[in-house]
Amino acid sequence: MLDSHLQDTWVTPSATDDAAADVRDAVTGETVCRVSSAGLDLAGAFDHARRVGGPTLRALTFHQRADLLDALAAAVRARREELYTLSARAGATLTDARYDVDGGIRVLRDYAGRARAELPDAPHLIEGPAERLARGDDFLGVHLCTPSPGLVLQVNAFNFPVWAPLEKLAQAVLAGMPSVVKPATPTSYLTAHLVRIVTEAGVLPPGVLQMVVGSVRPALGLLGEQDVLSFTGSAATAATLRTHPNLVARSVRFNAEADSVNAVVLAPDVTPGSPLFEAFVREVVTEMTVKAGQKCTAIRRVLVPREHEPAVLDALSSALDAVTIGNPTADGVRMGAVVSLEQRDDVRRAARRIAASGRFVHGDPDKVRVVDADPERGAFLDTLLISADPDASAPHEVEPFGPAASVLAYRDTAHALDLLARGRGSLAASAVGDDLAWTTALVREAAAWHGRLHLLDSTNMTQTTGHGSPLPALRHGGPGRAGGGSEMAGIRGVLDLMQRTALQASPRLLDSLAGDA
Amino acid sequence: MLDSHLQDTWVTPSATDDAAADVRDAVTGETVCRVSSAGLDLAGAFDHARRVGGPTLRALTFHQRADLLDALAAAVRARREELYTLSARAGATLTDARYDVDGGIRVLRDYAGRARAELPDAPHLIEGPAERLARGDDFLGVHLCTPSPGLVLQVNAFNFPVWAPLEKLAQAVLAGMPSVVKPATPTSYLTAHLVRIVTEAGVLPPGVLQMVVGSVRPALGLLGEQDVLSFTGSAATAATLRTHPNLVARSVRFNAEADSVNAVVLAPDVTPGSPLFEAFVREVVTEMTVKAGQKCTAIRRVLVPREHEPAVLDALSSALDAVTIGNPTADGVRMGAVVSLEQRDDVRRAARRIAASGRFVHGDPDKVRVVDADPERGAFLDTLLISADPDASAPHEVEPFGPAASVLAYRDTAHALDLLARGRGSLAASAVGDDLAWTTALVREAAAWHGRLHLLDSTNMTQTTGHGSPLPALRHGGPGRAGGGSEMAGIRGVLDLMQRTALQASPRLLDSLAGDA
Repeated sequence: MLDSHLQDTWVTPSATDDAAADVRDAVTGETVCRVSSAGLDLAGAFDHARRVGGPTLRALTFHQRADLLDALAAAVRARREELYTLSARAGATLTDARYDVDGGIRVLRDYAGRARAELPDAPHLIEGPAERLARGDDFLGVHLCTPSPGLVLQVNAFNFPVWAPLEKLAQAVLAGMPSVVKPATPTSYLTAHLVRIVTEAGVLPPGVLQMVVGSVRPALGLLGEQDVLSFTGSAATAATLRTHPNLVARSVRFNAEADSVNAVVLAPDVTPGSPLFEAFVREVVTEMTVKAGQKCTAIRRVLVPREHEPAVLDALSSALDAVTIGNPTADGVRMGAVVSLEQRDDVRRAARRIAASGRFVHGDPDKVRVVDADPERGAFLDTLLISADPDASAPHEVEPFGPAASVLAYRDTAHALDLLARGRGSLAASAVGDDLAWTTALVREAAAWHGRLHLLDSTNMTQTTGHGSPLPALRHGGPGRAGGGSEMAGIRGVLDLMQRTALQASPRLLDSLAGDA
Repeated sequence: MLDSHLQDTWVTPSATDDAAADVRDAVTGETVCRVSSAGLDLAGAFDHARRVGGPTLRALTFHQRADLLDALAAAVRARREELYTLSARAGATLTDARYDVDGGIRVLRDYAGRARAELPDAPHLIEGPAERLARGDDFLGVHLCTPSPGLVLQVNAFNFPVWAPLEKLAQAVLAGMPSVVKPATPTSYLTAHLVRIVTEAGVLPPGVLQMVVGSVRPALGLLGEQDVLSFTGSAATAATLRTHPNLVARSVRFNAEADSVNAVVLAPDVTPGSPLFEAFVREVVTEMTVKAGQKCTAIRRVLVPREHEPAVLDALSSALDAVTIGNPTADGVRMGAVVSLEQRDDVRRAARRIAASGRFVHGDPDKVRVVDADPERGAFLDTLLISADPDASAPHEVEPFGPAASVLAYRDTAHALDLLARGRGSLAASAVGDDLAWTTALVREAAAWHGRLHLLDSTNMTQTTGHGSPLPALRHGGPGRAGGGSEMAGIRGVLDLMQRTALQASPRLLDSLAGDA
């Protein structure tokens, strides 16, 4: 039974064996742990965050909070091998695990550096120069960003059990808010191990980080006006959280980052076989196979000029042929398992729905050859490339959350733009091409549907950090189907968690506030 | 029957007399007009906004959009006397009407000036310097703010029939989005006259401004991922809008500015009778009487040191004695009527609930002496000052939306801070005092509960624009009970309506975008 970490101590739920959920190894099907939140004192945990963690953080300056992030990063880095090893049980290769673990460490360090460079050594931020609001020089306006005296409740997805809590924690700590992390059940043991590493290192003050495994739904009624619910997961769950009566009644701040049907567009000017074309192929294959395609930013729709569709299908198919699938710890394996058998079956169903308007060009949704594992007990999937009708609905609406993508041939640029918008809001899209006028026009038309646009050309194709990688400097979150939220975006993500209050005051009072570090 | 303005033409609803709502003169009780949206083609109106108004605005640069605001301001100014005259039918004095009408004109001009000073002469904004995202100089990150290809649906409160639509329109026009305005029924004829002035002046391109009177609820199902619903009104209505299934399913952006139980705090250092004390008294009386207290920012709770409570009650009572109530067009009248008899009865009920824990110190909730009007047929109210128990619930939870306020005596600073927070989130609070350390400490503790803090001292008390005045430079909107939204705040309010997209691109592409004005 997996313990929760509440009020700075490990707590075992009171569930009987019947009530708890089994978490299974993605590769072997063995039970890893059981999960339940029965009998946990969530009200006590929230109080502890608000009465102990919050005041401690609020008393620190931004720079002192940055020091906490650096200490946290060092603590995780010192024991990251343990997290790599444990990640294999969720089906992750070493590359996948590094993406999750090292990615999380990088976000902490990046935010620590940004806070020192861009925020004052004070507990709050006075924004911008004061503006005169009336005749006379003694009635000025500015905005003050102060920490909210509440907590951040993270409700996370299963796919980044280390990166997601650390990414959100970085912004919460800097904003002066304590966190309660609720990991997704299928990979909760990984987040739990992360929290164990952090607590054993003793780098965070009491009450700053708590974790509850199992269901957190009963606790939604305990959130208040100063709290934030930060959700990552499906649009359906986002909808039920967003409309929770208590959240609505108290205007509890809610941020959602939902899956989306992200696209890449190959521009008409890119010749098959050219280096830029090869970069495009690498990008698609990477997105399909890293973490077995279980990234909310992963490419699901590959939009290509109609005349290049056969060349694209050929090139992707041969590249996918070279991807060895199997036990993520075995030599030569490039793609492991998806997180669970249920997830595998979901992906199969979704891929078949899309293929109904076309055909599977690569991979078999029903069987897969694997190295060093049992293809039935492990949650393995073949890489599934579908050639689909671009004007059908399914490719734009159905998201196979695994190693699957559909290739959609567009007639002309207007058609490509229309297809992009049919995703109804995405976290990220890529465009690959060297024609500046074409890409500029695409950006202007398509930007409003996307949280991030990744624009590859011959000059930067070897420098890219990849279509699927959210970066601390950039906004993560997209409109519409992607949930309408925003995370990171540098210091903006910190300030978004704080209360921005307009101040109308005399210069001497503003001086007093500015000197009040 | 009041016409709506849809698809650039005036349209009469198809309602029978039975279905329409009567709008009555606040002073005489005569019927002003009847209101219904029956039979109106709202789907056609939304399409028109998206297909005609949006593309026109998006093709303009920020500076060209600013020119539209200036033209709009000039058109309204040229005929503002008509709006003043009509405002009297809603119970407004000339001062009240100017607050609404001239205030709206000022926001337009202010935003036009800000756009020219702070935004480029381009249709979109590239934010901040580009940041290197990897080794090498060709993979850079910036954020791009582009207009969303949707519309802004304004659902407004009755109290600012001119200012509110213009304030929201200013930000929408600059953001490149067309607007559909839905005025509150009790003052819909004022917004309709404003729209008539604007359309007759021909200053806005087709599809940029439409207005629908009556119910807009059937149209909520027509909003999409790129639209914004901007609401001002009660928390209860905000909750039903926020949870509308279509809005939730499509992550339609929703901004709420709800009423709140705003406070003023008199600091312990202010001596009764001192000039600063007199300024405090003027501020409270102004807030109670301007627009007959029907401002979402108006002071409802007057927090005073216990030892000064008698002096405060005396001073406020004598100042209120001097307020002549009656027909807003009559000589010497300082306060007119509230908007309707229903509103009057609501205020009476709310004031009585608060007075249950105390007593009426000034005014009689049941009767009022008026000049040049019938006190029963007009929606008149006496100014109601209540001395209440600070530790009771009602003063912090019940908002009499009229000329009423409660005086609450605090024991010490901690008690005052606790009372402030019991409003559970307010649009605005004032603090009045000269002790810098005291006010600084109050700001740090109370800021998180407020959208705006208005801090009066002896140096700026003659320069203030007033506790209740939202200013274009400053954020308007507060946490929790105040709805959790944000309007204005200078150019921030424009960018909040736009889509902010992270771009990862080569320098040459960023140059191409920057040059693409």
